[in-house]
Amino acid sequence: MSSRSTGYFDKLETRCRRIESNLCIGLDPDSRRIPKHVGAGPDGVYRFCSEIVEATSDYAAAFKPNLAFFEALGTEGWHVLRQVLDQIDGDIPVIADAKRGDIGTTAQQQARSIFERLKADAVTLNPLLGTDSIEPFLCFPHRGIYILCLTSNPGAQDFQIPNDLFLRIAEKAKEWNKDGNIGLVVGATHPEQMDRVRETAPELPILIPGLGAQGGDLEMLMGSARDEPRHKMLFSVSRSILYASDGKDFGHAARKAAQFYCESINRAREKTLHD
Amino acid sequence: MSSRSTGYFDKLETRCRRIESNLCIGLDPDSRRIPKHVGAGPDGVYRFCSEIVEATSDYAAAFKPNLAFFEALGTEGWHVLRQVLDQIDGDIPVIADAKRGDIGTTAQQQARSIFERLKADAVTLNPLLGTDSIEPFLCFPHRGIYILCLTSNPGAQDFQIPNDLFLRIAEKAKEWNKDGNIGLVVGATHPEQMDRVRETAPELPILIPGLGAQGGDLEMLMGSARDEPRHKMLFSVSRSILYASDGKDFGHAARKAAQFYCESINRAREKTLHD
Repeated sequence: MSSRSTGYFDKLETRCRRIESNLCIGLDPDSRRIPKHVGAGPDGVYRFCSEIVEATSDYAAAFKPNLAFFEALGTEGWHVLRQVLDQIDGDIPVIADAKRGDIGTTAQQQARSIFERLKADAVTLNPLLGTDSIEPFLCFPHRGIYILCLTSNPGAQDFQIPNDLFLRIAEKAKEWNKDGNIGLVVGATHPEQMDRVRETAPELPILIPGLGAQGGDLEMLMGSARDEPRHKMLFSVSRSILYASDGKDFGHAARKAAQFYCESINRAREKTLHD
Repeated sequence: MSSRSTGYFDKLETRCRRIESNLCIGLDPDSRRIPKHVGAGPDGVYRFCSEIVEATSDYAAAFKPNLAFFEALGTEGWHVLRQVLDQIDGDIPVIADAKRGDIGTTAQQQARSIFERLKADAVTLNPLLGTDSIEPFLCFPHRGIYILCLTSNPGAQDFQIPNDLFLRIAEKAKEWNKDGNIGLVVGATHPEQMDRVRETAPELPILIPGLGAQGGDLEMLMGSARDEPRHKMLFSVSRSILYASDGKDFGHAARKAAQFYCESINRAREKTLHD
């Protein structure tokens, strides 16, 4: 039995196939947008996230908590995050959206925080500091690592796109992929660059944020992924699901939104398969 | 009275001049390297950092806690960090070495965590995600922001040096510097590139890690900073001070090491002033 057989991407593919979903639900609990009746502070964030998890799990191929939103709660943030993760079914992979990137000794600490303390299945990393900032995470071959390649925000134009830095990142990520546990983050707002990334690193699964609140062309994005295992393209939606309603029905509204995105992705997938 | 008159770099310059030091002491409490008698876990980290702060404050132009080492403690990490910061004299600026970098809404959360919850005077940021990842921090004009420009680790060769990305970063940092609160991080391991950074962005103060455990040529680095206010070049040393001894005398040894680095930097500064 190879190390890959129990690895992150196998867990993700199993989950994707079982519930027929390529949807990752981002947990970005912004205390200013949480429905008022839920309450503010760490307790409110916990109650909000718990209800979102319960309401949307049927459509969630993965959950992606954004660590910054929990850290914003101060000293209680990590405690709340641990409590929320305890509510997530063990079959559903958890991607810690940490965007960490630091040098060797510090990166070792971060890898321990995320994989050992939080027990996340996967993590997002910022590659700017290069190979030795990634290596401590590679020591956990059963966990997944998504490297920021081309982000969905306007600022991607500042450094990632000039001189095709994003393709250099994809090349390096291939080198780092000795255990088959590396993926890339490519924003849904860049359908025109998605093909270039896929040509450069066809073996790397892609996590695609920016489909909801930030826009993005689903069929064009999906077009390059035909016939591939579902986990190769995981679409992440956060705000459009979390804040689908600010009333007492927010859980129900989130479930409906999750269903909508799940089915939209499936339709685009079917369409490209039969084109 | 302009906003700059009470800003971070003024506080830093005041401190540097008063104690005649350009030394920043990095707080990277690695629980595997903390002297055994201090004890392990969050309590041990707190006791260790408290004694380091008390023993070295006379030479500290600033303290730079590395957030990753506190996060590695799990849910208690931020609480310990807050306790350690409470031990630091209010005249000594605190730089949160966070290396954060995320898109708008998330970056807003991070800025609140670091400036409002931790009450840090300054922060280090990773610029890979571009302008909109930095903007939420710019809303705090009295706080300092050090942008990672050229890091001290071997991995700087992977993305920062090819195509002179580090100089593009320095150019962008100048654009972001409307309130005079931006600096750059340039590792001590790159004396040959330091002059190019200083030519590109002569107005930006520089935070220089990598002087101790990672090596680095002090006089060559200092050469380009003659006649400038002290805060323009702040040298950060972490491990060589924190772990100067693993015995019961670790505080005393740390104080001696801090004195050594403080005086070495002052000698190099004097030498370049009179060359």
